[in-house]
Amino acid sequence: MTGIHELQVEREEQLVASVVDSFANTPDPRLRTLITALTRHLHAFAREVRLTEAEWTAAVGFLTAVGHITDDRRQEFILLSDVLGLSMQTITMNHPVDEVVTESTVMGPFFAAGAPEIANGGDLAFGASGEPCWVDGVVRDELGTPVPGARLEVWEADDNGFYDLQYPDAQMAARAHLFTEIDGSYSFWALTPTPYPIPEDGPVGRLLAATARSPMRAPHLHFMVAAPGYQTLITHIFVGGEDLPDCVFGIRDSLIKSFDRQPPGTPTPDGRQLDRTWTRTRFDIVLAMDSAKS
Amino acid sequence: MTGIHELQVEREEQLVASVVDSFANTPDPRLRTLITALTRHLHAFAREVRLTEAEWTAAVGFLTAVGHITDDRRQEFILLSDVLGLSMQTITMNHPVDEVVTESTVMGPFFAAGAPEIANGGDLAFGASGEPCWVDGVVRDELGTPVPGARLEVWEADDNGFYDLQYPDAQMAARAHLFTEIDGSYSFWALTPTPYPIPEDGPVGRLLAATARSPMRAPHLHFMVAAPGYQTLITHIFVGGEDLPDCVFGIRDSLIKSFDRQPPGTPTPDGRQLDRTWTRTRFDIVLAMDSAKS
Repeated sequence: MTGIHELQVEREEQLVASVVDSFANTPDPRLRTLITALTRHLHAFAREVRLTEAEWTAAVGFLTAVGHITDDRRQEFILLSDVLGLSMQTITMNHPVDEVVTESTVMGPFFAAGAPEIANGGDLAFGASGEPCWVDGVVRDELGTPVPGARLEVWEADDNGFYDLQYPDAQMAARAHLFTEIDGSYSFWALTPTPYPIPEDGPVGRLLAATARSPMRAPHLHFMVAAPGYQTLITHIFVGGEDLPDCVFGIRDSLIKSFDRQPPGTPTPDGRQLDRTWTRTRFDIVLAMDSAKS
Repeated sequence: MTGIHELQVEREEQLVASVVDSFANTPDPRLRTLITALTRHLHAFAREVRLTEAEWTAAVGFLTAVGHITDDRRQEFILLSDVLGLSMQTITMNHPVDEVVTESTVMGPFFAAGAPEIANGGDLAFGASGEPCWVDGVVRDELGTPVPGARLEVWEADDNGFYDLQYPDAQMAARAHLFTEIDGSYSFWALTPTPYPIPEDGPVGRLLAATARSPMRAPHLHFMVAAPGYQTLITHIFVGGEDLPDCVFGIRDSLIKSFDRQPPGTPTPDGRQLDRTWTRTRFDIVLAMDSAKS
């Protein structure tokens, strides 16, 4: 606060204290902790940058635009949290490094409940365009025991860079759920992930443009894996061997996989021949037990 | 970060550094300052409280609700900023204490452009209910010279505690604009301000309820005073002599005025007799020159 008069500093600090005091009777102690810490950090930010009234007005306008573009199919607040690294920081804090358990990454704004079920070996595309990609692996617990009946939700963008939620119609595509077999194994056809920009036509896209940041996400396939007694895992796998800028800071080295491209005609794991290239990758998953939840 | 493993601290700090670095090429230096400071403070908040994923999800839901209830007639983000004291902190920083100039306070969410013009001595009620209140004063500059032609926007709640923007129809009431005379004087009929709760039916109201805070605003009348060559003044006057809790931290001692109640039949300043009580108050205003803008 260099150069700010002592009386002015006192006036600003008194205001912060008044706001913090106003929350003193909050019945839930955790809520009290959260809201008073938020108050302190919010005021510390505003005071450090000496926020102007025009900037305050612009911030209100920005948040209003984020709110207004958000609907059942688009979640711009999650996108904002993602590009500010807050989503990944929340993941990082709540999933400390573990040598065994599969690492988590951001959920992103494009999960949708109610995706169709497919059998193992089934195809999640449902008409979405892209190069076929065979994905298989085994879900195990921390001791190496297979987890049968684990539910996998998988979703991704098509090779035009769009999720179904961004399609003009309400059709579900490039998302599905399936369950692991008795030996913990799973397999399905997906689309080889391709890089794509996060939605650029809203306030978050404008923020990235104004800050000369790339809107690109590294190519990835989303997984959410749930089984009774285990912590639900939310993660992606990323396509290795590519330059991987990622505007949501979501990459973990352990989640980069090789997607091996196969010439047309190569027999597929499910005994077919495709007249185009396809890729295959393997993703073995280790779930943390629920009691280990930090 | 007591009790957090050193490697975990490093991982979290590296993420903050990555996000800050991502903004390094922002062309506008002020935007770079703002967004990098916001990033640091946002992550510092999340790390201090060890934000959980459920809390992150709740925060996204809260902001979404704030965005969705905000429309042309209701600005819940301003209300949120108000109850967190951020609005008042912004005012406080941008209007350091000055012995001469009239103090500022929050604008609040209920300003509306396009309010009808009234002549001096006119009535801003336009059908809004409440006790009549005569307001007069003189607008001067810092040297004491009257400012003719200054534009005053004045607005307030009715005695049911509602602004016109909260009425079910689109009727404008309890707001107007007028101009000072050649001697800087102004006068108008308003309604004696009464205490009222900020809107409680939205997410900000629920936040106040959950934190056991009063939703009440101290009774006040809003002013926005603009004249070429002067800084626009945004302020209220508050009714003195009452207990004045104020959920937006807007009170300044210098803005508390006496509203003197007159018995029915007391001749009014404009030579009428009312068959009910009325009040009168005086508010002399000193504008800061624009060059003095900090």
